[in-house]
Amino acid sequence: MIDYQNIINSITTSLKRVDDRGIVASYIPELASVDVNKFGIHIVDADLNRFSSGDANELFSIQSISKVLSLSKCISIIDNDLWKRVGVEPSGDPFNHLSLLEFENGIPRNPFINAGAIVVADILVSHLKNPKEDFLAFIHELTNDTSITYNEKIAQSEKDTGFRNIAAANLLKSYGNLLNDVDTVLDFYFHQCSIEMNCEQLSDAFFIFMNHGNCQNGKTFLNINQVKRVNALMLTCGFYDEAGEFAFEVGLPGKSGVGGGIAAVLPNEFTVVTWSPGLNAKGNSELGMKALEQLTTQTSQSIF
Amino acid sequence: MIDYQNIINSITTSLKRVDDRGIVASYIPELASVDVNKFGIHIVDADLNRFSSGDANELFSIQSISKVLSLSKCISIIDNDLWKRVGVEPSGDPFNHLSLLEFENGIPRNPFINAGAIVVADILVSHLKNPKEDFLAFIHELTNDTSITYNEKIAQSEKDTGFRNIAAANLLKSYGNLLNDVDTVLDFYFHQCSIEMNCEQLSDAFFIFMNHGNCQNGKTFLNINQVKRVNALMLTCGFYDEAGEFAFEVGLPGKSGVGGGIAAVLPNEFTVVTWSPGLNAKGNSELGMKALEQLTTQTSQSIF
Amino acid sequence: MIDYQNIINSITTSLKRVDDRGIVASYIPELASVDVNKFGIHIVDADLNRFSSGDANELFSIQSISKVLSLSKCISIIDNDLWKRVGVEPSGDPFNHLSLLEFENGIPRNPFINAGAIVVADILVSHLKNPKEDFLAFIHELTNDTSITYNEKIAQSEKDTGFRNIAAANLLKSYGNLLNDVDTVLDFYFHQCSIEMNCEQLSDAFFIFMNHGNCQNGKTFLNINQVKRVNALMLTCGFYDEAGEFAFEVGLPGKSGVGGGIAAVLPNEFTVVTWSPGLNAKGNSELGMKALEQLTTQTSQSIF
Amino acid sequence: MIDYQNIINSITTSLKRVDDRGIVASYIPELASVDVNKFGIHIVDADLNRFSSGDANELFSIQSISKVLSLSKCISIIDNDLWKRVGVEPSGDPFNHLSLLEFENGIPRNPFINAGAIVVADILVSHLKNPKEDFLAFIHELTNDTSITYNEKIAQSEKDTGFRNIAAANLLKSYGNLLNDVDTVLDFYFHQCSIEMNCEQLSDAFFIFMNHGNCQNGKTFLNINQVKRVNALMLTCGFYDEAGEFAFEVGLPGKSGVGGGIAAVLPNEFTVVTWSPGLNAKGNSELGMKALEQLTTQTSQSIF
Repeated sequence: MIDYQNIINSITTSLKRVDDRGIVASYIPELASVDVNKFGIHIVDADLNRFSSGDANELFSIQSISKVLSLSKCISIIDNDLWKRVGVEPSGDPFNHLSLLEFENGIPRNPFINAGAIVVADILVSHLKNPKEDFLAFIHELTNDTSITYNEKIAQSEKDTGFRNIAAANLLKSYGNLLNDVDTVLDFYFHQCSIEMNCEQLSDAFFIFMNHGNCQNGKTFLNINQVKRVNALMLTCGFYDEAGEFAFEVGLPGKSGVGGGIAAVLPNEFTVVTWSPGLNAKGNSELGMKALEQLTTQTSQSIF
Repeated sequence: MIDYQNIINSITTSLKRVDDRGIVASYIPELASVDVNKFGIHIVDADLNRFSSGDANELFSIQSISKVLSLSKCISIIDNDLWKRVGVEPSGDPFNHLSLLEFENGIPRNPFINAGAIVVADILVSHLKNPKEDFLAFIHELTNDTSITYNEKIAQSEKDTGFRNIAAANLLKSYGNLLNDVDTVLDFYFHQCSIEMNCEQLSDAFFIFMNHGNCQNGKTFLNINQVKRVNALMLTCGFYDEAGEFAFEVGLPGKSGVGGGIAAVLPNEFTVVTWSPGLNAKGNSELGMKALEQLTTQTSQSIF
Repeated sequence: MIDYQNIINSITTSLKRVDDRGIVASYIPELASVDVNKFGIHIVDADLNRFSSGDANELFSIQSISKVLSLSKCISIIDNDLWKRVGVEPSGDPFNHLSLLEFENGIPRNPFINAGAIVVADILVSHLKNPKEDFLAFIHELTNDTSITYNEKIAQSEKDTGFRNIAAANLLKSYGNLLNDVDTVLDFYFHQCSIEMNCEQLSDAFFIFMNHGNCQNGKTFLNINQVKRVNALMLTCGFYDEAGEFAFEVGLPGKSGVGGGIAAVLPNEFTVVTWSPGLNAKGNSELGMKALEQLTTQTSQSIF
Repeated sequence: MIDYQNIINSITTSLKRVDDRGIVASYIPELASVDVNKFGIHIVDADLNRFSSGDANELFSIQSISKVLSLSKCISIIDNDLWKRVGVEPSGDPFNHLSLLEFENGIPRNPFINAGAIVVADILVSHLKNPKEDFLAFIHELTNDTSITYNEKIAQSEKDTGFRNIAAANLLKSYGNLLNDVDTVLDFYFHQCSIEMNCEQLSDAFFIFMNHGNCQNGKTFLNINQVKRVNALMLTCGFYDEAGEFAFEVGLPGKSGVGGGIAAVLPNEFTVVTWSPGLNAKGNSELGMKALEQLTTQTSQSIF
């Protein structure tokens, strides 16, 4: 049996000494002020054993990791109808590029580039009675933790500086692929990105992706085919234009966020979340990537 | 225990009735003349049980599937040095596009687009004493079958019509990313693509990718990290601009060829090869894709 | 001496019989309802002789032709400082594409693609006391005709459907290349595009481009270098991705609009404006292009 | 009357003092060894007056300037049939990019990017009895100077390093837009680029473009429509991705070559050729561009 606690302790220790910790996102003050020295990691295995190290209990902004949760909620509502409006192919582009969108008639390449996540947000706005409340309720169910909530300051800052997302939403609208009002959809989208969790809570939220769609208390949120699809999308599109690199080095389906978090799963085995706010040139957590490489190398575990 | 024989029999039966079988590749006469009604499937599991159905013993041109084998040989020689000359990211483009190559200074995006496979071929030409003989010997070792060989007629036809590949090789040369003579490298490349195998032989050749780098007779060709990388590349880049779709629908690392073959693996469980020469619009076997979707859906098996 | 009246009469007659008149722009009702059978042409020569034929006195929406006038006003204020924020190269793309913008760090390729014209509008909003009033006053001066004004209904319709322009403005804002508020700039931009003139009035407005920057009453608006630049931009960028075709077939600097107008000049010789609302596949007036080809071919006149 | 001699003398003097002379092309030894301090200029006006300054009588490699001459020969043979195989739009790309070619099904955007010039060469190879001899004879006729010839050493060096051109030719072949053998076409193409002339000879060769298609001895090579087209193409496509800049700053149709030459015309007025081997970042002669800017500014002459 693998001694996860020992392994993540040694990873945390070794990463403490790393000088090149990447650069903390600076486009909004709430992210810019986070301490670059933070590092946390948390694992939940299939038997609900928990392993924590470093700053695993500190809240951070989950940002784009929320796209996996909104996608899951969306699929649970409209299932494969989603794929009429969003593709499933990797983009080969940074997360906020608009160029490919144009060549494909308004169908974003996948639900994890911003344009794709905005279409998902549009669908949730259409189908949820009280979109922001209902989405939070979904996360509370997944995690069994009602303390999780939006950070209104971050949501506001995102809105004040979110010109590229406003551009993307308007471009989608010009193609008829955004049914609700741009402001309403982006208000939802900026809120979903502003959710704060710690490594442990986020590991709980991702438990369904390693456990056939079932929550820790046994409730089913996605069927096995839907889980396969979400995991496949994480693997092929979860790290912007570094998805291939992550699959290649780490070998787990996962999703990163500009707040420095990475959530990943090994189906049937465990959920792991790392957090370190310094980002590499591609926008993914520098130490988070390293930690997950070490974890899968030391345990010889991966989906491959 | 899963009754693979029963499942593949029923898949073969159901696909017999399908009208839309795709279109057989027609750019060279040797491929154009293959009967579109052919369909074969073969599975080898981890215990060396074998399951066959349809035309599983008929030879076909493995074409781009050979890129996985040349990549493996290459990695077994120079390991991670390869990644200085070839990337690991999906391209989002058809297999024979040259455009992305230009934007990235002569480094092909991955080893499964033609330009990347030509760089791999260049490396093998540099390192193998008798490139064509030695590569065949490698395949004989993998399969324990010395009857496997090149189809000289196909190699010649590829050469006669391979203007895009000649273009790619010269473009690589202009960037200094092709060290040998263009003609020599392409002669090797066209030969590797011309290899003929049947579903059973190809299942044997891919056995190492599901078995931690070890052949059926126990010999080790790749270490566990190298296998992870090859499988990750198959998953993210193995189906041209349909890689996301295959991961999403099938959920196995795999590689297709224009001859209508698809080889895929479920690590620790099985290797599967399908063959049906009709291709879909993206250049992947129409019925092969369908067969593998049905297989993973019916068995509820996938890496996700 | 060339008998312009006779030539344009025969052109008007021959174009009456043309069946393929292109398709009237339909994205806003005010344009969609224009009669496709309209055709007008007007010439003013250097000696202020005037030649009219067809519907030359009917008002139409000048749309993108206004970009030449806003550019001229902008140059008359900040001269070459403009080129720090907008390029001078043809784009090879349709007028409303955003893709190239992204690859060049927020500097639109030229002032006649929408993104470039929006930057010009931003500059006018910064420098004019009452932007909309002052810009109209400029046009009144050029034409000596104070009846010319905005069509508020068109401006409103443009705003209601202008998602791509809103996207472009926000993208510019994300690059720091839009200094004023998006709504304010676009309000100005949508108004400038909504101006209505007839062929005669527009010929007068363009008189400065064939007359070294001097208006008919002798007042100077641009110096000779500035005129050279505006004319060069019209020639290389005035017809979206059909600029080469227009230079090649017609050989005059000119600018088209989606309302079906084309204004062109032969320096030192004449200004010509055509109007026919049916557009070809590239968004330029089908019969206007034909009329100008015939005019320059029959008179053997062009800048080349 | 304009005192061209005085003006070009003062330009030559002022450019002598310029420190930033650009960088001499270094991809083949024959170009790399040219003295960066060279500068020559020659003007022939419509009355056959000649004005020379600097190194106007020294031979240099005309390189891409030859594309205007091969285009003219081609048009004189097949006229508008050429445009079925080559476009007339600016590319917005460097001269040796292959990417746009791919998006437009093998039709190069214009005859002055390399792929387009290779199609022109293919047509000449098809139509000329002895392509190399006949093309040289054409230039001898234009210039009335039989001393002009190929530089075999340069032609050979181009061939030895011309991997991008070999790539382009093969890509054209893959699209069916190259009818002759790749080697034969490129042998012609590399030879045409290797022609050496001095500023005076090249001014003579370009005389037809300012004189309605008529040579100095009165012989007609192109009709007035054909001249319009060649001049339009020079203006919109003659300076790679700096065509807009040249039109904007200089305002004359012209063509540059990597050997440091620029040939330009003011229809009905003069032909001018400059030569200075140092190139700017876009591959155009640094001092040649400057000289022509000064010439047209000081004389207030341009097509605009």
